[in-house]
Amino acid sequence: MSDQSAAEPTLNEDAQRRFPVPAYGDLPEDLRERIDEETERAGFTPNVFAALGYKPSHFRAFMAFHDALVEDTDLDREEVEMIIVAVSGRNHCLYCNVAHGALVRIYAKDPHLADQLVSNYRTADVSDARMAMLEVAVKLTEEPDGVTGADLDMLLEAGYSREEVWDVGAVAAFFNFSNRMATFADWRPNEEFYALGRGGE
Amino acid sequence: MSDQSAAEPTLNEDAQRRFPVPAYGDLPEDLRERIDEETERAGFTPNVFAALGYKPSHFRAFMAFHDALVEDTDLDREEVEMIIVAVSGRNHCLYCNVAHGALVRIYAKDPHLADQLVSNYRTADVSDARMAMLEVAVKLTEEPDGVTGADLDMLLEAGYSREEVWDVGAVAAFFNFSNRMATFADWRPNEEFYALGRGGE
Amino acid sequence: MSDQSAAEPTLNEDAQRRFPVPAYGDLPEDLRERIDEETERAGFTPNVFAALGYKPSHFRAFMAFHDALVEDTDLDREEVEMIIVAVSGRNHCLYCNVAHGALVRIYAKDPHLADQLVSNYRTADVSDARMAMLEVAVKLTEEPDGVTGADLDMLLEAGYSREEVWDVGAVAAFFNFSNRMATFADWRPNEEFYALGRGGE
Amino acid sequence: MSDQSAAEPTLNEDAQRRFPVPAYGDLPEDLRERIDEETERAGFTPNVFAALGYKPSHFRAFMAFHDALVEDTDLDREEVEMIIVAVSGRNHCLYCNVAHGALVRIYAKDPHLADQLVSNYRTADVSDARMAMLEVAVKLTEEPDGVTGADLDMLLEAGYSREEVWDVGAVAAFFNFSNRMATFADWRPNEEFYALGRGGE
Amino acid sequence: MSDQSAAEPTLNEDAQRRFPVPAYGDLPEDLRERIDEETERAGFTPNVFAALGYKPSHFRAFMAFHDALVEDTDLDREEVEMIIVAVSGRNHCLYCNVAHGALVRIYAKDPHLADQLVSNYRTADVSDARMAMLEVAVKLTEEPDGVTGADLDMLLEAGYSREEVWDVGAVAAFFNFSNRMATFADWRPNEEFYALGRGGE
Amino acid sequence: MSDQSAAEPTLNEDAQRRFPVPAYGDLPEDLRERIDEETERAGFTPNVFAALGYKPSHFRAFMAFHDALVEDTDLDREEVEMIIVAVSGRNHCLYCNVAHGALVRIYAKDPHLADQLVSNYRTADVSDARMAMLEVAVKLTEEPDGVTGADLDMLLEAGYSREEVWDVGAVAAFFNFSNRMATFADWRPNEEFYALGRGGE
Repeated sequence: MSDQSAAEPTLNEDAQRRFPVPAYGDLPEDLRERIDEETERAGFTPNVFAALGYKPSHFRAFMAFHDALVEDTDLDREEVEMIIVAVSGRNHCLYCNVAHGALVRIYAKDPHLADQLVSNYRTADVSDARMAMLEVAVKLTEEPDGVTGADLDMLLEAGYSREEVWDVGAVAAFFNFSNRMATFADWRPNEEFYALGRGGE
Repeated sequence: MSDQSAAEPTLNEDAQRRFPVPAYGDLPEDLRERIDEETERAGFTPNVFAALGYKPSHFRAFMAFHDALVEDTDLDREEVEMIIVAVSGRNHCLYCNVAHGALVRIYAKDPHLADQLVSNYRTADVSDARMAMLEVAVKLTEEPDGVTGADLDMLLEAGYSREEVWDVGAVAAFFNFSNRMATFADWRPNEEFYALGRGGE
Repeated sequence: MSDQSAAEPTLNEDAQRRFPVPAYGDLPEDLRERIDEETERAGFTPNVFAALGYKPSHFRAFMAFHDALVEDTDLDREEVEMIIVAVSGRNHCLYCNVAHGALVRIYAKDPHLADQLVSNYRTADVSDARMAMLEVAVKLTEEPDGVTGADLDMLLEAGYSREEVWDVGAVAAFFNFSNRMATFADWRPNEEFYALGRGGE
Repeated sequence: MSDQSAAEPTLNEDAQRRFPVPAYGDLPEDLRERIDEETERAGFTPNVFAALGYKPSHFRAFMAFHDALVEDTDLDREEVEMIIVAVSGRNHCLYCNVAHGALVRIYAKDPHLADQLVSNYRTADVSDARMAMLEVAVKLTEEPDGVTGADLDMLLEAGYSREEVWDVGAVAAFFNFSNRMATFADWRPNEEFYALGRGGE
Repeated sequence: MSDQSAAEPTLNEDAQRRFPVPAYGDLPEDLRERIDEETERAGFTPNVFAALGYKPSHFRAFMAFHDALVEDTDLDREEVEMIIVAVSGRNHCLYCNVAHGALVRIYAKDPHLADQLVSNYRTADVSDARMAMLEVAVKLTEEPDGVTGADLDMLLEAGYSREEVWDVGAVAAFFNFSNRMATFADWRPNEEFYALGRGGE
Repeated sequence: MSDQSAAEPTLNEDAQRRFPVPAYGDLPEDLRERIDEETERAGFTPNVFAALGYKPSHFRAFMAFHDALVEDTDLDREEVEMIIVAVSGRNHCLYCNVAHGALVRIYAKDPHLADQLVSNYRTADVSDARMAMLEVAVKLTEEPDGVTGADLDMLLEAGYSREEVWDVGAVAAFFNFSNRMATFADWRPNEEFYALGRGGE
């Protein structure tokens, strides 16, 4: 047995409760590569990868969109994560609240912000511009047909560029998808996510 | 100038109202290829391609997911489109109601089904299994945290396979994303979609 | 067999699904006369007449109010139909969406307006005054106790007369009744309504 | 001047607050006759007549439907009034709660039933059959598209005839209209209605 | 048998329907003393005392808070009762609507105000300041996380002191508790409350 | 100056943002005693005591009810805290989510349960009986008039005694009060609460 095989990630069997979790070794190579990268970065394999491994075509497309949202944007990463958690709080999504809550704590270097966003985004200690951003993201979540041009203008006036406004909408909209997948399949957050970033590190 | 260049698609300037629509010639080659294919198939360029052209990374990931949903599934294409329209009706999404309404009429060879689904999925003339499918899709849309294992069991008992149940959830969830993008950016359906399939063709 | 009896309208047995549809010949004379007129005008017997034939006293009173709403008003007929479809979209009423959708297309000479109104009245291509009219009609539908004097003032400022404002409220209110009757008894739109006015004729 | 003209009803100027109340003498003769009858029966002119006098064509059609609902039905009058008040409570309609609350007290000979129905129909001291009737009426009010054949079957099993089931739906639906007219125009209950039937008389 | 024992209050067995009502004689002395006082004041024993007698520790704490709310405040007693009834109307609480409705009639010397507040606080004939007070109380009831600093500022501008604003919030919040206890245990109003204050006395 | 005065607790000035926080030394003696006890027990002064210090009569009554709920009950303390957090999650209450979330972690010796309850009580890893308990508590929160005798029977069948059922209702109801006070006055959780019990200690 080689060192490499010893280092193979093990996918958490409890990653989701309503669909099977595949064995790492049964996954297509491109999925294994992505999982290896994420595992090395995080120190554990986030359960979303184990869950989506159930359907590789969905794994690939989901990650392609996720990557576009966080990489091809002028929004700060902490802004992206803040939108995600504010939206996920409203949609009552355990996985996203906990996993992206950890990312909010880490990117914003703030151990309290995630719990504020999950509970009630209006209590978050953020700038006025970011509060406007959250307000529009939550409105798009709760009453999508109520969003009007005036909401977008508010973001432009708050200093966001036209393309950043698109990105605010795209992140909020995408996590209305992700939240529903997570709740539908009953994705469970890794234990590590609950504690990460609590020290403000 | 060749005949080919004369046939270049023109993107509808009114494809979306809150963000610019790019010129076809300014798009990356892979987007142009996809648009060419769609334009040839449909006889016109559906406005979703013009709208998403605003942000090519989002265009690519969106289409990758869309393709996975309609191609890598044992659900009938008409079932996929039925879910989309039932969900889009609840989310008050003009673009998806009209564009996917046309697809429902075409794939189901039924000129009335789309209007039934947009109005109230419970009035649709469909089998009991498909009504159960629509019920779960709409519940996931309106009250995602209310979906429980019992809802998934209902679909298994109705005859859907485990993976088809995943796909029902994935289609419903994805169009909660798509509906919100369309409403946020104010995507407008092509005129052609309103009329397509009305004769039961 | 005389020409007359050959021309007798046949009431659609599928006009409603939760109550019997009477035979034309069994109806009181005044109902038959009204049905004859409507059938001659439309070229078919709209199912609402077949459905309400179940209870002649309700047929008469319903039509009396309908006639007052469309005849004794300074609102344009297309405005009346626009209110009806915006309200019926919110109430998820198949019959009214489809039957009055056809009337919107015909009276407004616009093949797209009805689908806009059913989906989300805010996407309708109408004047600011008519958008205000639709906003108040939908508010009266969804949150009647939230309508205040300020809403009526908005309509007066948009150029509607005091009596036209009354009529906006009356049409919206009446179709909150009609929508519920249609859904309760499961009225089905005639096939003809789905297609009428699609060519902008 | 004759004794008769001295007895002419005076319409309450505060009958509605957002539209003018006409003078009795300016009303068409058929409206005056109806008002005379009602005034003699009640001992005062209920404000709904003064309010609807603003638009005689609506007055006539409204009363025609009202009369059909209470006269052409096998439902007990107290059942009709119970439905009205349960529906009006949900729609937060002051006029109907107070005016029809008085009628509930009088027809049911129960000084407490109206307040129970306005507050929460589930607290009403009524038979199981009538509780089923109220449940369906309130569901049709709050979530009309959620009413299914099973709801109607429940009423049939509770002992209501097919036509009585229609009437339950029709009364509930009609007062969704009436409640909205009353709130829109701000109809005010006559002082007399607040107190009528409080003694169980 | 002494005169005193003859005067002992009898607790209404129908005071609540989902938990037992204790016998007066079985209650701790401090509860009996409080009940004696209330009974002497009102002329009957309000059912809330009989109901809460089921759990003396809750009786004591409930009454302690109630007393603080009505005694330690610069709000008029009629303002306190108006808030209670507006909140209780929204929460569909029979007991509080009827019992505190009586108190509204008595303290405001207005036989109609309670029914206005139960039905729809916006129809109440009150000053602008009190309407603002009711608006905030109802918002805190229906959408607590939507209350912002701007709502409190509105009350300050309407003339309420900082501490009175706290009291508006505290009364509204406390009756969100009381309403839920009453509905949970199915507290029934005493017959006396329905009629009290109807004459404007 | 004695050692004792050096140990005097300092009330957090940011304990609430919409009302002043009193100085410890200005509080009545009984409040100071309670604060001393709590401070000694927790190692810091929970902000709820600082906030309620604004109005001592409310401080006393609030704590009296809180104490009755946690001391005079056969429910386990962890059950009481679970109800509180499930209810507070629905009411979007930051203070209660964070402060009682810490207590859930400590009493249940489970570092993950609080985040599950805040996000979506249905994801909590608890027994069937406790899930039934949470379901009724949340229903009483979201739709109080929808709670019926059948809900209470479900708890009895799950093994709770009659008095424990009362207590489930009382805890849920009381925190509908507490959540609204906290949101109204903008109570802020102490920093310590965010981290407490995260290690499963």
